[in-house]
Amino acid sequence: MESYYGLPHVIDARQFDVDLLERIFDEAKEMEKIVDEGGCDILQRKRMISLFYEPSTRTRFSFELAMSYLGGTVFQTENAKEFSSAVKGETLEDSIRVLCGYKPNVIVIRHGEDGAAERAVRVSGKTSIVNAGNGKEQHPTQAVLDIFTVFKELGRIDGLSFAMIGDLASSRVINSNCYLLGKYRPEVIHFVSPKCAQVKPGIKEYLQRHSVRFSETTDLREVASKVDVIYQTRTQKERGSNFSCADRRLGHFVVDREILQLMKKNAIIMHPLPRVDEIPAYVDEDRRAAYFRQAANGLFIRMALLKMILAPSKS
Amino acid sequence: MESYYGLPHVIDARQFDVDLLERIFDEAKEMEKIVDEGGCDILQRKRMISLFYEPSTRTRFSFELAMSYLGGTVFQTENAKEFSSAVKGETLEDSIRVLCGYKPNVIVIRHGEDGAAERAVRVSGKTSIVNAGNGKEQHPTQAVLDIFTVFKELGRIDGLSFAMIGDLASSRVINSNCYLLGKYRPEVIHFVSPKCAQVKPGIKEYLQRHSVRFSETTDLREVASKVDVIYQTRTQKERGSNFSCADRRLGHFVVDREILQLMKKNAIIMHPLPRVDEIPAYVDEDRRAAYFRQAANGLFIRMALLKMILAPSKS
Amino acid sequence: MESYYGLPHVIDARQFDVDLLERIFDEAKEMEKIVDEGGCDILQRKRMISLFYEPSTRTRFSFELAMSYLGGTVFQTENAKEFSSAVKGETLEDSIRVLCGYKPNVIVIRHGEDGAAERAVRVSGKTSIVNAGNGKEQHPTQAVLDIFTVFKELGRIDGLSFAMIGDLASSRVINSNCYLLGKYRPEVIHFVSPKCAQVKPGIKEYLQRHSVRFSETTDLREVASKVDVIYQTRTQKERGSNFSCADRRLGHFVVDREILQLMKKNAIIMHPLPRVDEIPAYVDEDRRAAYFRQAANGLFIRMALLKMILAPSKS
Repeated sequence: MESYYGLPHVIDARQFDVDLLERIFDEAKEMEKIVDEGGCDILQRKRMISLFYEPSTRTRFSFELAMSYLGGTVFQTENAKEFSSAVKGETLEDSIRVLCGYKPNVIVIRHGEDGAAERAVRVSGKTSIVNAGNGKEQHPTQAVLDIFTVFKELGRIDGLSFAMIGDLASSRVINSNCYLLGKYRPEVIHFVSPKCAQVKPGIKEYLQRHSVRFSETTDLREVASKVDVIYQTRTQKERGSNFSCADRRLGHFVVDREILQLMKKNAIIMHPLPRVDEIPAYVDEDRRAAYFRQAANGLFIRMALLKMILAPSKS
Repeated sequence: MESYYGLPHVIDARQFDVDLLERIFDEAKEMEKIVDEGGCDILQRKRMISLFYEPSTRTRFSFELAMSYLGGTVFQTENAKEFSSAVKGETLEDSIRVLCGYKPNVIVIRHGEDGAAERAVRVSGKTSIVNAGNGKEQHPTQAVLDIFTVFKELGRIDGLSFAMIGDLASSRVINSNCYLLGKYRPEVIHFVSPKCAQVKPGIKEYLQRHSVRFSETTDLREVASKVDVIYQTRTQKERGSNFSCADRRLGHFVVDREILQLMKKNAIIMHPLPRVDEIPAYVDEDRRAAYFRQAANGLFIRMALLKMILAPSKS
Repeated sequence: MESYYGLPHVIDARQFDVDLLERIFDEAKEMEKIVDEGGCDILQRKRMISLFYEPSTRTRFSFELAMSYLGGTVFQTENAKEFSSAVKGETLEDSIRVLCGYKPNVIVIRHGEDGAAERAVRVSGKTSIVNAGNGKEQHPTQAVLDIFTVFKELGRIDGLSFAMIGDLASSRVINSNCYLLGKYRPEVIHFVSPKCAQVKPGIKEYLQRHSVRFSETTDLREVASKVDVIYQTRTQKERGSNFSCADRRLGHFVVDREILQLMKKNAIIMHPLPRVDEIPAYVDEDRRAAYFRQAANGLFIRMALLKMILAPSKS
């Protein structure tokens, strides 16, 4: 069940095991060199369609530049929901079937519904599908780049303590990160969220099954001094959440000066971005603020994944 | 009047004659090989602008991938109506003049108004114009790929019987297909539509002038057993039509199990897509369902047209 | 203060001096040849992001085709305001930081706020920023192509008389053009606008400081016979202006037959486009109508700027 997809597709963080992640991270390091050299031609005549039902310029650009650094060509829409609009009313399956008829090598899909990426795989024929975020469920490439970032910053996952903060109930990034952490031996995960936005039961069960300890709290101050990684998230208002992490009646969720004071000297602060008020701008100056380095790693990880999907034999 | 444009531009299905169509179909078969090989460089340093005043990711992508398989470069907007928005208020002619000043080799235009593509040609200078659907009038490249599909599936047009079904009054695809069928000797065309959405008088006159027999009915069951091609269409709600083909009070327009039962063994079902409820998903399993193969032919036909427009001398 | 940016960035028309403008114009003439030859590879493996917070297909395409003629690769969004949307709420600085982490060579930014391009420069690291219009403030590349157009059409700036007409208070193009004219020795600038839309005080001060004479009037007929360049503009309704230049109660601002009659034989009519009713279509036939030639010059100037920014050493 765990490795149920090979790398023709990237659908679910659970499909990765530690060996595969290590190979991806090795590739990603090679990719940094390729970027420094201005790119290569490994994916010449390979074509990617960016099919975004939800706009996400950030994620879209990171995939598109990744494709370009490898020599591939990109086609994109920010407007894919037009396919399924009330007037035109096409199913996702029909849209994917038609696009795959144009023989792209890979479709990168961002979709508002749970299960969308898996439905796409079922009708995609020879075209690879990469899940760039679907519903409240998964964002596997984000999780891979997050784990890569922890390795680059701290050298390991095993034995580290994590705090995951914010709108945990609606965050597909948190889900996917927990799925990957379950493959390693972290010391503990502290979930810090308002009571109304606690991490999903399914994630807790998964962690238990994988022998990963966790706790839940509403006050980041309780755990800030104990963790190596603070993973902050944004309230997903576009997915129905309507609280602010700055609302002190709900608890303490903001990475503010008090938290910086409490944190270990070598801990890091991560965030999938965009951030709103859950990390004030003054934190950027602290060298433990890793979120912009984390974002930059997205390019390398997506290059590595695209290369492994589309040119697996090239070393 | 009939062949009033050469191939510098593709504006109107009537501009094609049987000889030209045959050359396009021959090219399209070559294009299938080029796609299998991953592309070629015939159109290197040729540039296409996709200028879509109505979003149509499907048609846009088929042109853009077509250009790419031939080595050309693509620039696109899904947002062209911004040119003519209430605040900015520019005429189509001015927009085309400015864009042609940037010296693209071809502009592919989708526009909501009748006559838009012809207006573009008048001011486009050395830039070729390709009509990717305008108003309720014409969608010539769709018609060429449709006729190509009938040839691939059934080997000929002459002597075949067609049923054209649905919102015939608003379908530019039906118009363009009738214009092309008038160049051949089909046995008969049965128009099957609600009384409120019958095929336009101008089309019937055209067919009479070209000696193509036709009939009109509101019940697909009457003709389903006699035809070789069922050409189904969608109700064009975005162009003002407000009935459902599933509404049995208007007639029988859905390709359902009863129709499948009636159909000839070697007949085919076509649809320009997207489809809504006028063809239920279970029909996809029937090998006579040709609509996804038809959509895939769009790539080859658009490659053939772009090559003939932009690199006519290359064999 | 005047040349406060080198050419790594293009932010403010004031950064250009006469020598630099001359070099840009020389490059632009070379660019015309490159376009005639179908392009070159000078910017191969260079990557541009078009980041448009306000849609502007015209300006965006001119930058994108410019990049393409030089062999570079383009990534684009027409939807950048999604970054700063109410739900996601990211600062411009964060957006630029993340995008620069993907290592594009240049970001071309169009933004609704004054100061946006300068804010981008502050966090862009090694990535060059080009201001493609911000707020009511500046549109420097438009001004460079406008001055280039005057040189091509009339051979010089020094000693020429200009009329600038329309919504001068809201026009960033007028600002940037005045900044450049201040570097030369024009005879005089006549500002012709409704009383509610007069040129900004800061611009008048700038011209005084640079010893450029100017006058203000509400009637183009008073100055039409005296000027070499009529620079017409559009009412910026999207930036809050709500008058029509055709409203005769406000004055005479339309370039109509009466104005054509008054104008010098060798004068030219310019407009940054799009135009609405401030220049009727019949003016297009007059050979003094230079606005479409002006628009076409945008390609060459943007090519010249991109080359000087991204490949300064290549001759």
